[in-house]
Amino acid sequence: MEKTQLFIASNRERFLDELLTLLKIPSVSADAAYNGEVRKTAELVAESLRKAGAENIEICETAGHPIVYGEKIIDPSLPTILVYGHYDVQPADPIELWDSPPFEPVIKPTKLHPEGAIFARGACDDKGQMFMHVKALEAMIKSGELACNAKFMIEGEEEVGSENLGVFIKENKDRLKADIILVSDTGIISNDNPSITTGLRGLSYVEVEITGPNRDLHSGLYGGCVANPINILAQMIAQLHDEKNKITIPGFYDKVIEISTEERAEMAKAPFSEENYKASIDISDIHGELGYSTRERGSIRPTLDVNGIWGGYIGEGAKTVIASKAYAKISMRLVPDQDPGDITALFTKYFESIAPPAVRVKVTPHHGGQPAVTPIDSNGYLAASKAMETTFGKRPVPLRSGGSIPIVALFEKELGLKTVLMGFGLDSDAIHSPNEHYGVFNYFKGIETIPYFYKNFTELSQPS
Amino acid sequence: MEKTQLFIASNRERFLDELLTLLKIPSVSADAAYNGEVRKTAELVAESLRKAGAENIEICETAGHPIVYGEKIIDPSLPTILVYGHYDVQPADPIELWDSPPFEPVIKPTKLHPEGAIFARGACDDKGQMFMHVKALEAMIKSGELACNAKFMIEGEEEVGSENLGVFIKENKDRLKADIILVSDTGIISNDNPSITTGLRGLSYVEVEITGPNRDLHSGLYGGCVANPINILAQMIAQLHDEKNKITIPGFYDKVIEISTEERAEMAKAPFSEENYKASIDISDIHGELGYSTRERGSIRPTLDVNGIWGGYIGEGAKTVIASKAYAKISMRLVPDQDPGDITALFTKYFESIAPPAVRVKVTPHHGGQPAVTPIDSNGYLAASKAMETTFGKRPVPLRSGGSIPIVALFEKELGLKTVLMGFGLDSDAIHSPNEHYGVFNYFKGIETIPYFYKNFTELSQPS
Repeated sequence: MEKTQLFIASNRERFLDELLTLLKIPSVSADAAYNGEVRKTAELVAESLRKAGAENIEICETAGHPIVYGEKIIDPSLPTILVYGHYDVQPADPIELWDSPPFEPVIKPTKLHPEGAIFARGACDDKGQMFMHVKALEAMIKSGELACNAKFMIEGEEEVGSENLGVFIKENKDRLKADIILVSDTGIISNDNPSITTGLRGLSYVEVEITGPNRDLHSGLYGGCVANPINILAQMIAQLHDEKNKITIPGFYDKVIEISTEERAEMAKAPFSEENYKASIDISDIHGELGYSTRERGSIRPTLDVNGIWGGYIGEGAKTVIASKAYAKISMRLVPDQDPGDITALFTKYFESIAPPAVRVKVTPHHGGQPAVTPIDSNGYLAASKAMETTFGKRPVPLRSGGSIPIVALFEKELGLKTVLMGFGLDSDAIHSPNEHYGVFNYFKGIETIPYFYKNFTELSQPS
Repeated sequence: MEKTQLFIASNRERFLDELLTLLKIPSVSADAAYNGEVRKTAELVAESLRKAGAENIEICETAGHPIVYGEKIIDPSLPTILVYGHYDVQPADPIELWDSPPFEPVIKPTKLHPEGAIFARGACDDKGQMFMHVKALEAMIKSGELACNAKFMIEGEEEVGSENLGVFIKENKDRLKADIILVSDTGIISNDNPSITTGLRGLSYVEVEITGPNRDLHSGLYGGCVANPINILAQMIAQLHDEKNKITIPGFYDKVIEISTEERAEMAKAPFSEENYKASIDISDIHGELGYSTRERGSIRPTLDVNGIWGGYIGEGAKTVIASKAYAKISMRLVPDQDPGDITALFTKYFESIAPPAVRVKVTPHHGGQPAVTPIDSNGYLAASKAMETTFGKRPVPLRSGGSIPIVALFEKELGLKTVLMGFGLDSDAIHSPNEHYGVFNYFKGIETIPYFYKNFTELSQPS
């Protein structure tokens, strides 16, 4: 891999510039106003794959945003790595909390990134991490060191639930044939402590609407006489947790696989400073399910969070109104073997049951995703572990993550393929938040590590 | 009063047209964008007083919106009636729920107003009701039947807490000398059942802010590990009521004057149909403090309502975010002898006490107002009762209202004057809501009744 690493070292500036160009296009998949920008981004990804040396590139139409496909088949008898990533990004709001415009990337040093971090929406999630694979592919091809076949499938709807990816996969099973799926859309513990994600939580996401009176009312005339949908919604949300911060939905925990004491003890060995954690987000206390550590609460335990709430008068000053309706967006992170469909049904049934007769309840499911756990004795895991050990000088620890990448379960079901989650972000990268950023160190560490994965996986798959 | 009534009957069309003109100006006092319109409205009110025959008209500057003053002194030895009203209106939002534009008044029949109702923001609250007094004054002056002296004080900040009215009153005690204050900013039970408001609830209004982490977080990485300010806010709001729907703030009820069983029995005689009430706002059940009727909950009992709530992602689709902050606007309606300042302090102390250590709480008070009860054996009440009996053909019942007109307590304190609340609106007029309206019947019934009040009050004040 010497030529490859040399190529990377010689092209650092260009590799960085090309990422910045990609980050300038606001590919917000959730907002139809950006549809044109999303497509432009797909076109740029396709073009960058072509320039990297990939073939059979196609911008594949779906019912939503397109999926970019490209491949480099050097020998059908060699293993094939299918790279998955996404070029769409989260909405940038609240935009006023960004220190620099979200789609005008700037590089600034931070405490954790003294060598500089790229600040932009999508810098880490997932444009920056996805683009590492394009650049690594380019380096391997140009250096003549591509060890096996590569296929790329880069979608534009990850942030809105990958609704059309399932259809695409079903219709392209042959084209997507591979031996392993490689994804960089997760993180490491720190730049000194590499880790590989071995578990992902699933997701159930609903929107609830509480209707009281058929119109907004004057709170003087009606206050105290009618069920106020905001107060009722607050009471219903409060009832979703008990005093131990356990979720009260009947049956919610039925399928949760409890982790053994031994495994929990093993997990607890991963470095974690509660003080640093609290300081990093300026909170005076942690908060969560009784009996579990912060790391456990964020990985092996299911959770329920309100992601948004609104109702009544939210302008300046005071308006004495009782709203007709109140709304909330509520999501649940799931762990094996909870099923998103089942959980959404349990939530809906319970939520409707706790509403007083004076209001009406409507629950609308958004997208969901299956939880997933990946094995640590597979060729894929071992190839990634060895690759990271080479570039970081330290063996990575396996770690369950709290996030959801629902497509991991989908890949297994539809393609029969395992996924390796070799990501390079940090928890502090503020993905989905204002001032999202990605370390320049991490971007290049990723590009350098990926070629070793190709090499290791090829060797492990073909015992001599 | 024959000439006066004839004048009114002969000028119906013009009286209606002039009100429509007044309703076309969006005098939204809460929003600085409308400052120019608010002033235009003050000028139109001043002009209409001049045309009615009033003198010494002045647009009195304040630190906020101006107060319009005018008077007609016919004989200093006769009693003086001080008319109070307001020309400002509530914001029109949610504007999309209006069937016709809020500042383009239209007259349409409704179930309760078969003869037509004027649909516009401020139609009832309070432009329509205030303007009845201007038109009644005009009719009395033009007919040579004005029975006593009249003073008008029409403010432009009622919907934002009358912040500068207190200063104005203190600085104009001589000018405002009178024997009674007459206000039409309340309602009657129905067009067949006149009533006079004898009690008003006070108001304490606060805005609360809950801060968790210092930035929005990804709910996958952080979900379950940190206190989510929206969940916490919901739990805190839920804790403000107990299972009997009593308010849990320690000391909240300490100064509430409990009404005797006899008085409650008397109040219960006022006609009220729970079925009609529920049907009018399309609710399947009533909801409120255990042990009290709907009428009681809305008048003699204090209440707590969330008037607005917001936090997190409230756009389209799903965003997996844990918000840094969550907000609510919360108001409490108070009854004698609760003090708004004391209640705001009790609320703040309790609200801070129920917050978990993982969040920070900020409580900001908005305007407040004292509760008030008016006597039913005063000359003012008797004059109003007799006037309504003349025009409705039925003696009005005294009724406590749930709304707040904090200036009633202010008038008593600063001017030593009692207030008569002779309003002509209906609960169903949707004040503060989309599609606010005011019955054409009610508008003219008000104009017709007011001159009898002048006559009755003058006679009652000067025993022969």
